[in-house]
Amino acid sequence: MQFQLTSNLIDQIQAYVSVQDEVALKELLTDLHHADIAEILDEVDSDEAAYLVLLLDSEQTSEALMELDEDVREKLLENLTPAEIADEVEEMDTDDAVDMIGELDDDIQLAVINQIEDEEHRADIREMLQYDENSAGGLMAKELIKVKETWTVAGCVREMRRQAEEVTRVHSIYVVTKENELIGRLSLKDLLTSDTRTKISEIYIPKVDSVNVNDPAEDVAKLMQKYDLEAIPVVDDKRVLQGRITIDDIVDFIKEEAEKDYQMAAGISQDVEADDSILQLTRARLPWLFLGLLGGVGAAAIMGGFEEVLNDHVILLLFTPLIAAMAGNVGVQSSAIIVQGLANDDVKGSIGNRLIKEMLLAMLNGAALAIVLFFYVWISESAVDYATSISISLFVVIIVAGIIGTFIPLFLHKRGIDPAIATGPFITTSNDIFGILIYLYIAKLILGI
Amino acid sequence: MQFQLTSNLIDQIQAYVSVQDEVALKELLTDLHHADIAEILDEVDSDEAAYLVLLLDSEQTSEALMELDEDVREKLLENLTPAEIADEVEEMDTDDAVDMIGELDDDIQLAVINQIEDEEHRADIREMLQYDENSAGGLMAKELIKVKETWTVAGCVREMRRQAEEVTRVHSIYVVTKENELIGRLSLKDLLTSDTRTKISEIYIPKVDSVNVNDPAEDVAKLMQKYDLEAIPVVDDKRVLQGRITIDDIVDFIKEEAEKDYQMAAGISQDVEADDSILQLTRARLPWLFLGLLGGVGAAAIMGGFEEVLNDHVILLLFTPLIAAMAGNVGVQSSAIIVQGLANDDVKGSIGNRLIKEMLLAMLNGAALAIVLFFYVWISESAVDYATSISISLFVVIIVAGIIGTFIPLFLHKRGIDPAIATGPFITTSNDIFGILIYLYIAKLILGI
Repeated sequence: MQFQLTSNLIDQIQAYVSVQDEVALKELLTDLHHADIAEILDEVDSDEAAYLVLLLDSEQTSEALMELDEDVREKLLENLTPAEIADEVEEMDTDDAVDMIGELDDDIQLAVINQIEDEEHRADIREMLQYDENSAGGLMAKELIKVKETWTVAGCVREMRRQAEEVTRVHSIYVVTKENELIGRLSLKDLLTSDTRTKISEIYIPKVDSVNVNDPAEDVAKLMQKYDLEAIPVVDDKRVLQGRITIDDIVDFIKEEAEKDYQMAAGISQDVEADDSILQLTRARLPWLFLGLLGGVGAAAIMGGFEEVLNDHVILLLFTPLIAAMAGNVGVQSSAIIVQGLANDDVKGSIGNRLIKEMLLAMLNGAALAIVLFFYVWISESAVDYATSISISLFVVIIVAGIIGTFIPLFLHKRGIDPAIATGPFITTSNDIFGILIYLYIAKLILGI
Repeated sequence: MQFQLTSNLIDQIQAYVSVQDEVALKELLTDLHHADIAEILDEVDSDEAAYLVLLLDSEQTSEALMELDEDVREKLLENLTPAEIADEVEEMDTDDAVDMIGELDDDIQLAVINQIEDEEHRADIREMLQYDENSAGGLMAKELIKVKETWTVAGCVREMRRQAEEVTRVHSIYVVTKENELIGRLSLKDLLTSDTRTKISEIYIPKVDSVNVNDPAEDVAKLMQKYDLEAIPVVDDKRVLQGRITIDDIVDFIKEEAEKDYQMAAGISQDVEADDSILQLTRARLPWLFLGLLGGVGAAAIMGGFEEVLNDHVILLLFTPLIAAMAGNVGVQSSAIIVQGLANDDVKGSIGNRLIKEMLLAMLNGAALAIVLFFYVWISESAVDYATSISISLFVVIIVAGIIGTFIPLFLHKRGIDPAIATGPFITTSNDIFGILIYLYIAKLILGI
């Protein structure tokens, strides 16, 4: 029953496209879900994809277009004229239309908008292009069911039928005043069970959550998750109903956010995927690697400064990678917990308390690890002074690394900077350097060199 | 309008609880959303929380209980008798009820189930406890609206009103045969616009996505995301309708999965949060740090094996942390991209192609970094042979690290093991060791020692 994309199917489609066999293609594709069409568009060349978009019904392809990755969609649209793009936009919900048009070059944007025939749709899109992409206004769609408080149940059902034609799914019925001010919502159950002559003002529920068009998308996502909302109305400063945001838009947003944090922690900037080109991947990865190189060179320079010490105590040098690695590991652990906690609003209390907790934790972990290392060095090198010096260093380095890993993201967050940039290579590199510096100082102190 | 948790409010609640001022507490809390009640239960002591749960209406507290973290809920429930827990369960949807009961000890589970008064609810819960937590059966709820194909629209609306009393939100109306076999769904629009004497069999939509009770939760999440479904019916092997899964259950699942991958990459096992106890955090972090320690000790042992070389060429030792760190960074980048790609079904094609691509990418990055390092070492140490040896090593190490970082998660995935365990400390540690080994061998070769 489930659709399965095979290379056979792709070959077949490409063969039909090359001979322009419209009948065969329509038969093959017309009944597919738009998400499946999207998978096909993703696999074929961009000119073939453009051919398919023009061939198939815009009702189907407009939704498929929105399922594609931005760069695939961009290439595909380069093969279409503004009028052809406008045909697709015509079938889209306003939120999708705005997303897609926003990706086009400025002059093409204008040409496409001017080709949209539905006047209301065109005005809605123009208006929505004003909003910040990451605000409630940028996420919302204009399509919704609204009823006036002065209507009767009968008039309401009649009006709903008319509105429902433009709306894919009915999430909620919003109740507004004559001036379109949001005042409540209507339960379907109440609508079904009330007498047809009842006034809406008698049966509506005056309690309704809403967000402002300028609220950040992140806050909307948190609110909808916390209260398990499937849709939320969006109002302007005068509480006039402007649109609604549905949970499926938020699902994508939540997932992207969680993935972005992970990528940053792994030292990958920009939004790249395994299937992107080598050049795109390099652009996302190389800057972080340069940072790492800089850290390594810094560590080498520091060690060079201790050369006279190290020449006589080569054994100390054997453990520098261990110290650097442990400093990095602890730093990444602490920062990851803080970054996720901040993302989920789980981090309460003062920075001071947080640091004390992390210090206690690091002392516990550090002590356990230092004891193991002490015995290892003692037994393998039979040198109790080296063993003491190296394990005490490890203990101190772990505590400092934990504190740095906790403090930096909290500090950035307080300053309004995304704390995720502090994880990964940044923390690892700075902790490497601090770790080695501490290590060599303690060795000098304890070994009396 | 928005609820804001303040320490003042918590103090006030705790003061009322200590003097058992039921009236004041009810006045303060009765109108709050269950998600807000959950935040309060999270802040007060577990015996105070238990007192509030018993005091307030179970309709409100049963939902609040499900918003709590598992460990908070566990402590709270320890203060309640099986009969009191059963009162809360009575008000829960079956999916939540099963989740909560599943967390209890076996003997308490039995006692609670036996205290549930609603016979159907009890039977549903008993049945659902059989399913794997991470299967469609484990995620679904029994509460849904279903109509038989033989009914008329009028009978259907009547029956829907009855069923709607037990269902919080109407997602879809499912159409079944006399034997409860799922055959389609009914659009609300069609129901509203059809004559009341029309048979359901004439107006229902025979196309409906569904999943089997035994399908893994991950597949359900992917399917619902791909097709933007807000609810999906769950059937057994005979296509008999068993329940439905809604998008809000899936949102939590998706978020948890993305966060789990990130935590694993950061070297944190188990599901811990910033606010967990030091002991819990240690248990999640220490094992990975031990792995790191082992890697460091391994690296030290390897370098010890080259001692006679290194004694005469201490400069080589200055760059071991750099080599180890770069090997780690590249490994984490490659594995993160693969792990996310696998999670999103983005990774297509053979392992061989993947490895070739990563190798090309690593060669590009490695060349850029090696050239920079060559000039740095040449200028700072004025030794062209060391510069050559160290930069060639870096180039080779980056390629090997990239290949290991790509191969291991792909290999694990092929064997059915979660590839996320291969990211973070595991990759870093193994790449550290390989990196240093390669580095020293190449030095020996080039410097002719």
